[in-house]
Amino acid sequence: MQYPMKRAFSKVSFPKYNKPEIRTEIPGPRSKQLLSEMNVLQETRTINFFMNTAKSQGTYAVDADGNVILDVFGHIASLPLGYNHPAMAEAASKPEWLPFLLQRHALGVQPPEEWPRELRETLMRVAPKGCSEVLTTCGCGSSANENAFKAAFIWKRARERHGSEPTKKELQTCMQNEAPGSPQKSILSFEKCFHGRTLGCLSATRSKPIHKVDIPAFPWPVCPFPRLSYPLEENQRENREEEDRCLTRVEQVIHTHPIPVAGIIVEPILAEGGDHAATPYFYQQLRRIATNNGIAFIVDEVQTGCGATGKFWAHEYWQLDNPPDIVTFAKKMQVSGFFLKGEFRPAQAYRIYNTWMGDPLRMLQLDVITNVIEQDNLLKLVSDTGNFLKPELERISRENPYLIANVRGKGTFLAFDMPNGESRDQFLFEMRQKGVHMGGCGENTVRLRPPLIFCQQDATVLLETLETVVKNMKVSGNHRESAPTH
Amino acid sequence: MQYPMKRAFSKVSFPKYNKPEIRTEIPGPRSKQLLSEMNVLQETRTINFFMNTAKSQGTYAVDADGNVILDVFGHIASLPLGYNHPAMAEAASKPEWLPFLLQRHALGVQPPEEWPRELRETLMRVAPKGCSEVLTTCGCGSSANENAFKAAFIWKRARERHGSEPTKKELQTCMQNEAPGSPQKSILSFEKCFHGRTLGCLSATRSKPIHKVDIPAFPWPVCPFPRLSYPLEENQRENREEEDRCLTRVEQVIHTHPIPVAGIIVEPILAEGGDHAATPYFYQQLRRIATNNGIAFIVDEVQTGCGATGKFWAHEYWQLDNPPDIVTFAKKMQVSGFFLKGEFRPAQAYRIYNTWMGDPLRMLQLDVITNVIEQDNLLKLVSDTGNFLKPELERISRENPYLIANVRGKGTFLAFDMPNGESRDQFLFEMRQKGVHMGGCGENTVRLRPPLIFCQQDATVLLETLETVVKNMKVSGNHRESAPTH
Repeated sequence: MQYPMKRAFSKVSFPKYNKPEIRTEIPGPRSKQLLSEMNVLQETRTINFFMNTAKSQGTYAVDADGNVILDVFGHIASLPLGYNHPAMAEAASKPEWLPFLLQRHALGVQPPEEWPRELRETLMRVAPKGCSEVLTTCGCGSSANENAFKAAFIWKRARERHGSEPTKKELQTCMQNEAPGSPQKSILSFEKCFHGRTLGCLSATRSKPIHKVDIPAFPWPVCPFPRLSYPLEENQRENREEEDRCLTRVEQVIHTHPIPVAGIIVEPILAEGGDHAATPYFYQQLRRIATNNGIAFIVDEVQTGCGATGKFWAHEYWQLDNPPDIVTFAKKMQVSGFFLKGEFRPAQAYRIYNTWMGDPLRMLQLDVITNVIEQDNLLKLVSDTGNFLKPELERISRENPYLIANVRGKGTFLAFDMPNGESRDQFLFEMRQKGVHMGGCGENTVRLRPPLIFCQQDATVLLETLETVVKNMKVSGNHRESAPTH
Repeated sequence: MQYPMKRAFSKVSFPKYNKPEIRTEIPGPRSKQLLSEMNVLQETRTINFFMNTAKSQGTYAVDADGNVILDVFGHIASLPLGYNHPAMAEAASKPEWLPFLLQRHALGVQPPEEWPRELRETLMRVAPKGCSEVLTTCGCGSSANENAFKAAFIWKRARERHGSEPTKKELQTCMQNEAPGSPQKSILSFEKCFHGRTLGCLSATRSKPIHKVDIPAFPWPVCPFPRLSYPLEENQRENREEEDRCLTRVEQVIHTHPIPVAGIIVEPILAEGGDHAATPYFYQQLRRIATNNGIAFIVDEVQTGCGATGKFWAHEYWQLDNPPDIVTFAKKMQVSGFFLKGEFRPAQAYRIYNTWMGDPLRMLQLDVITNVIEQDNLLKLVSDTGNFLKPELERISRENPYLIANVRGKGTFLAFDMPNGESRDQFLFEMRQKGVHMGGCGENTVRLRPPLIFCQQDATVLLETLETVVKNMKVSGNHRESAPTH
């Protein structure tokens, strides 16, 4: 089940496709047919096209109409090694994978004998500095954050009881969803953040009204997140003032909000909300505030984790003296869950628990992913590609200041703003017609979320296509000729 | 990807094991070593033993110490076809599975072209009567229930707005987690119910304090669930009175609870809470109350679904005129999600959505499962085995009234009570030492959750072992000689 740590995967090449090949509009007739079939049973308006997954290879998705599309969205940042990576195919053909394909385990009752080793050698191998445990794996990013919140609440209440077991009154009242057993405690989050869509997560999420409206929410506090001015080098003083403004508000809210704060959750880059990041200073201060107030500091690396910023975890850029208490993950990791410091493990069993507790089969994938990242030095590739790509995007922004603004990000986890949502959506549509699949986020932002194998040649295809589309948009005037929003 | 609907799977036999083979205590030395390795990284007190999954076959689990154990717990009711079923092994060896093994799809953005067919021919093929859609698949049972709650809230608010879009004020206030955008709406559930452990689900769950304490909860209403007296035939009048008492309380709560009820959620058998069921009359009346009050009627079939009661869905026993509005599933289905009536699909896109939206690989497993259930007539096997097993358990109960009481359930989804939690736990431990793995639920209940292939021969092994253990417990007096609690 385990692969040798130092196995030579050989630099993988993907000779099958090196440029988009477009046969139809996207979605094409076959995708449209599938959309209409599926729409009888399920919402389909979010779907861009259907995939021929078997034919897809490397950074190129092949759609149901045979179009070959450079995939710079990667299943919402969930595709670490591109399509049908040969190392993954080789590993998956081994008989050791079969038992995990034929049935699912209840990992908390009768796990496979390989599980402790997988936890240790696959997950803990990439554990963020300071996190000594991983509790638990689960089925999606939302579940990871829900469980992280629970760990923070349990930790906070145990501290308040000085480590004693819950009282009889707490055990009674919790069955009625009443205090003190169901405590008045909150998670503090930030404007434009996204932490998932289940009811606990959604109470922290502040991305868009359509994500939240009509769903009951806990009355938890929200604070402003710094809106930095770009380029960062030219706006250091204003940005520091903006960050201090937000930090002051965080301290105010902690001391005045009617529901005591048990945890602060923050993304290294607020990805769904428009790819907003703060400088390391902001996160260092936030960590300090959490420590000083006995609050759990939770870093949501669901979208930023697993290498796309050029570090395995984006919060490595902050160089914290005191690491995060809890780090959540999903997407590129293929499994979801959270790392934590030992003191955050509940004292009692059965508190953070469910039936499947994730999927060991997807853990086997992660084993290959982490090996390939190491063997093929993919963090360096991500940095190199980013270092080529970002200055080029900045050049295009300078040449088209009313169309492309605020180029930002780390590694290939990059983004830029367009004048408004309509022009952004138009841009994404035109790019897709030319065989480059990208995603939007926030109100007017384009986000890059390619797999980690995305290289300079891929970046060149992206840039050439982008320049063509931008040129056409300028000529057609199909955008608002005004100063870009922020 | 799809298997012929009428493919002959041939009656499958599992010749490898037909009785337990015990070499060590359980957990044995190897499992204990693995427990101590794993405990450094994760909670382990819930684990019974580690599995050698590849060697396990049919209804028999092989543990890390080589013990061959009859599995009557089946990964908390999650093992439909037993271990390494030959039809599953044959299907999984097909190249069509490989693309779903090598990467995960964002099913709401760029799903595989096979997905509409899988939804139609795998999931909708087993859709409960009256449910015309399946929205969405997701990663675990809790996520299914969370999304079902969201569908109920969205439906309720849309009705209250007479189908209009959310107002500007609603879109603004929801970003602050305030009414009217974050509405005061509730889900009504029942004492001892279990609907999952994420914060929304946990607000409905009322199983045990240790599941709930220290976690904030929405102030949602709870109602008593009927406690029937067994055998049912001898207690019809009392049971009807008990059910009417609970129904009256449901109506009272709906009309008086300060937070308006948007949905009622109920399990056909309250499984985690102690395997309590009501008669069809109760559920028929509950459905009527929901309809009359404009409340969504949600049936949680996470544990009861997929055949273990002798019907594919346990709520088929109720013979409702008006089917449930929403039916949630997970466990034996290998995928989780929920079926619904068309009117419960939100009018807007992106409201019930996430990145993975489940796992198409596990859908391929479900395709095999539903085919084998049909081809091998497993619902009949479940009924036949249950019809053999239940009277035998009732006989043992009559012979040991202070140790085994209240034998109940449908198909092989059976349960009985023991005098108290200690004797129940002692019983489970002794059974496991003799090579029969069973589970507990509630305070003092033993639950049977074997795979659907569990046959009379397996049931005989179970019964013989059970009688030996019960006899030893009587001789040793290792139980409280008092009337059984129920």
